Amino acid sequence: MTAPTDANMAPESGDAALRERAARVIPGGLWGHMRVQGLPVGYPQFFTRAEGCRLWDADGREFIDFMCSWGPIVLGHQDAEVEAAAAAQRRAGDTMNGPAPVLVELAETFTAMVAHADWVLFAKNGTDATTVCVTTARAATGRRKLLVARGAYHGAAPWCTPNPAGVTPEDRTHLLHFRYNDIASLEQAAAEAGDDLAAVLVSPFRHDYGVDQELPQPGFARAARALCDRSGAALILDEVRAGARIDLAGSWEPLGVRPDLAAWSKAIANGHALAAVTGTDRFREAASSIFVTGSFWCGAVAMAAALATLRKLRAVDGIAHMQAMGLRLRDGLARQAAAHGFRIRQSGPPQMPMLLFDDDPEAALGSAFCALALQQGVYLHPKHNMFLGVAHRPQDIDQALDATDRAFAALARR
Amino acid sequence: MTAPTDANMAPESGDAALRERAARVIPGGLWGHMRVQGLPVGYPQFFTRAEGCRLWDADGREFIDFMCSWGPIVLGHQDAEVEAAAAAQRRAGDTMNGPAPVLVELAETFTAMVAHADWVLFAKNGTDATTVCVTTARAATGRRKLLVARGAYHGAAPWCTPNPAGVTPEDRTHLLHFRYNDIASLEQAAAEAGDDLAAVLVSPFRHDYGVDQELPQPGFARAARALCDRSGAALILDEVRAGARIDLAGSWEPLGVRPDLAAWSKAIANGHALAAVTGTDRFREAASSIFVTGSFWCGAVAMAAALATLRKLRAVDGIAHMQAMGLRLRDGLARQAAAHGFRIRQSGPPQMPMLLFDDDPEAALGSAFCALALQQGVYLHPKHNMFLGVAHRPQDIDQALDATDRAFAALARR
Repeated sequence: MTAPTDANMAPESGDAALRERAARVIPGGLWGHMRVQGLPVGYPQFFTRAEGCRLWDADGREFIDFMCSWGPIVLGHQDAEVEAAAAAQRRAGDTMNGPAPVLVELAETFTAMVAHADWVLFAKNGTDATTVCVTTARAATGRRKLLVARGAYHGAAPWCTPNPAGVTPEDRTHLLHFRYNDIASLEQAAAEAGDDLAAVLVSPFRHDYGVDQELPQPGFARAARALCDRSGAALILDEVRAGARIDLAGSWEPLGVRPDLAAWSKAIANGHALAAVTGTDRFREAASSIFVTGSFWCGAVAMAAALATLRKLRAVDGIAHMQAMGLRLRDGLARQAAAHGFRIRQSGPPQMPMLLFDDDPEAALGSAFCALALQQGVYLHPKHNMFLGVAHRPQDIDQALDATDRAFAALARR
Repeated sequence: MTAPTDANMAPESGDAALRERAARVIPGGLWGHMRVQGLPVGYPQFFTRAEGCRLWDADGREFIDFMCSWGPIVLGHQDAEVEAAAAAQRRAGDTMNGPAPVLVELAETFTAMVAHADWVLFAKNGTDATTVCVTTARAATGRRKLLVARGAYHGAAPWCTPNPAGVTPEDRTHLLHFRYNDIASLEQAAAEAGDDLAAVLVSPFRHDYGVDQELPQPGFARAARALCDRSGAALILDEVRAGARIDLAGSWEPLGVRPDLAAWSKAIANGHALAAVTGTDRFREAASSIFVTGSFWCGAVAMAAALATLRKLRAVDGIAHMQAMGLRLRDGLARQAAAHGFRIRQSGPPQMPMLLFDDDPEAALGSAFCALALQQGVYLHPKHNMFLGVAHRPQDIDQALDATDRAFAALARR
């Protein structure tokens, strides 16, 4: 027990003071992917306000944001339609003894929207969804082995967290690795699994930390599908990060490849805590045979928010807009980098951009650029893919580009 | 993909119609602990409204509720102070690029409130919290074995879900079992673990499904503490179900036994999705060394709700009130059962009651009683512990007892 704060004393509330207070009561000051230690000096840890595509930190600085809360904010903060739907459901009921009718409406919307989906169930974390997919695949096949791309992020449970601290070797006994977009390595991993192959778990594109993103080669996606068809294993698409930003019918739908199971989260409820698992009829019985649950998984407010989010994404063709805004940003950054004498690489779908500098293996240059851009009011990430949202308007992109131009200029003067 | 619902057609909205629609798009009609299949015929699956200690189902039936959403609703639905705090934070920001200042305030409140807590971190599911405790214990000790009571529920991840479908033997390789309140069996399990003992994970009292609850024997709690002190293992208290209903300083505080780590969820934010892990300084470094996270774990609205919930629980002495209301219910049920010639057993803390009938191993009599009580407007559970909340007033208990008296009478007439 630590001494309580004196309620009559105004607590220190700037970013530095909050960090000091947090360091006393939270291990390392914060846990997980939002811990600021991975970011350049100058990045704030605490935020006090968010609206549209803009954020304000605890020191009152305003930023045009290109992280979208690491993905969830797909329409923009404080979206009026989403928040009205959420508020109406909250006045009725949220976490009750069972779900609200909105569960059925949302499930019908999901199965109508997602090409492979005959059914859906809901959870809270992306990790919940990937874990449910794997458990369902194992229940359906009676097998254990799981193929994943080396370096891919599929969540933070012991079986998948990128950091092995506190994880036992047995948590990962049944994981075998392949190289993304490398059919031969996929086939080799499948051969190692032999007749114990339960599933192939793969992201819609390669969006690993700190390296160029790779779009899926159609032949690779088809080979993964064929492998699963041949072996009876489940093809699981991890849509947690990309879902609802590439194609509402499924991120591999443009390739004509449909998974058996898919994990969704992040963007589906515009920042409300929700995850989903979709699947085909072949896996329906297995999905109903496993026991997975959480105290808040039937919470109705997040479901009402998701329903409004998905409807609005479709109504405004949000994905096309995010693509256009991402291209506008990408083209501007490419022109500026060339004009200031920097060689950069921009990879992945334009609405989920990754910006890396050539000859910058430790991202020192990238970090310096991002720190300068932050000083100019633009929140970028030097090592992780970024996110566009529907709230980004052309004038936001242009204002951001004015700022990044000044950042490139300052970087060139160093 | 299923055919979309015609938007111009009013969808069927009663409970039976909703179940039919759900069966088409959700495996088994629902997943997890809220699936109605475990309850007597007549129990509704869908709820449209909740206020205070009352719920309305999709057919418009009103119930005085004794499940409190399986625990989370500790103050009552639509609590004005909690919802005002949540709404204010929502207008500022919820899921952002990092936490809001309310994280620090809540962390300070938690560490001031919970006796053993030098630090805290937050998550979304109870299962997140128990898993983080186990991972932290393993990171701190470099050991693998985990002792758990046979039949205890600690979550729904592969390592702990009560249903083995889709789980591999390796997920549970390091679990060893003891009998709750049985020191000899605890010592024997520890001996089996030998020098690989990472942690003892235990609930504050025995609240297993379908059996009498058992309060912890002080000697058993002290023996668990002594075992961990002797071996260097972590004593983890699973407060997910009982936390904030027994003692705000920790459910074993009245026994004078403090855990090293504790998992919290359910009641801490009055229905908003939140979980927490508290720990002592000895485990602080390990907790910061592991990588655990989720897209919504820094969501500020649930934290603002938690802050308001914990403050109000203290301000109104909510636990004493829930105890008093639980005793009023228990005494009334005991009198009624005797008057109508039934032998029942009521176990556990009065604010988390379990009601079982003698000579009723399949809970047939208990189920019949609960179904009759439901018809009279009272929502009980025949096999799971129930929950009182601060919203239960004496007149609610008395109204519920009028209903259960009619249910006992009807049961006696059968």
